[in-house]
Amino acid sequence: MNFCSNCGARIVVRVPEGDTLPRHMCDACGTIHYRNPLMVVGSIPEWEGRVLLCKRAIEPRLGMWTLPAGFMELGESVAQGAIRETLEEANARVELGEMFTMLSVPHVNQVHVFYLAQLLDLDFGPGTESLEVALFREDQIPWKDLAFRTISTTLKHYYTDRKHGAYRMHADEILAPRTPLT
Amino acid sequence: MNFCSNCGARIVVRVPEGDTLPRHMCDACGTIHYRNPLMVVGSIPEWEGRVLLCKRAIEPRLGMWTLPAGFMELGESVAQGAIRETLEEANARVELGEMFTMLSVPHVNQVHVFYLAQLLDLDFGPGTESLEVALFREDQIPWKDLAFRTISTTLKHYYTDRKHGAYRMHADEILAPRTPLT
Repeated sequence: MNFCSNCGARIVVRVPEGDTLPRHMCDACGTIHYRNPLMVVGSIPEWEGRVLLCKRAIEPRLGMWTLPAGFMELGESVAQGAIRETLEEANARVELGEMFTMLSVPHVNQVHVFYLAQLLDLDFGPGTESLEVALFREDQIPWKDLAFRTISTTLKHYYTDRKHGAYRMHADEILAPRTPLT
Repeated sequence: MNFCSNCGARIVVRVPEGDTLPRHMCDACGTIHYRNPLMVVGSIPEWEGRVLLCKRAIEPRLGMWTLPAGFMELGESVAQGAIRETLEEANARVELGEMFTMLSVPHVNQVHVFYLAQLLDLDFGPGTESLEVALFREDQIPWKDLAFRTISTTLKHYYTDRKHGAYRMHADEILAPRTPLT
């Protein structure tokens, strides 16, 4: 951030009076430009024991598999965002169940939320950000080719809870990898 | 948003190729400036059946009562943000329990998350954004002077669940009031 999005003047970074953290500030018009974490919202679409995954058509992690999810938009609820992303990425209609994971990823300033979901029909297919969409049994999940740790964490919780016969909400934190991914 | 925060050129609003929503775009440097919902994170600090509330020293809702909460910052988890806000607003140290409410407020583009929490000591007091901090029994809660509907919704769920002897996670949506608040 170099310029004020309100008036176009140069931005300075310093701690505002009464604040505790450095902020991007405009001395010309007085605007403080806060930056905050982003929410990524999605679902775990299920059909007769199988789970729908999407092969990513975009970076990052092009060609790897993910649950349908994406950045929450203005003017929608978390649940509405999860339904919309499932429709956009997999052309899949779902009925949401309970919220299942809320995973903070502080080193990338994101919070990922996944809902349990039932596919309403089998008329799904890749959206513009997916190369392929398919249903997987547990023994077919491409664990080594999952796009993000929030996906593998969510699926691990899902199969563990399923074995125990009851799903519960999991609020976890995904720590930075010791060796940064390239 | 009038100017590009990257290069300082004028912003235009239109739907980017391959997108479905209008975005703030810079034709000079090609940056797309997305805007997304913000997370507000806080806690329900409990001490021997009483709940800690803060009287707001800042607008909006100056002079009204709230649970300690505020905007989640970069580089922290949701739980870390809830602990930090409780410390900042009420100088109160808590041990977090389970996540209790996640309330989407789409008409103001926010998601509010509250954790159950146990106060670790009684050495609390108003932070810079609070006028007063106090513990309330259920029959003392100032229901008509609560600052936000996410606070009253969270406290209603809290007392209902307490009567039933078990707390569970509540993911709800707070709809826009029919008569806009002034």
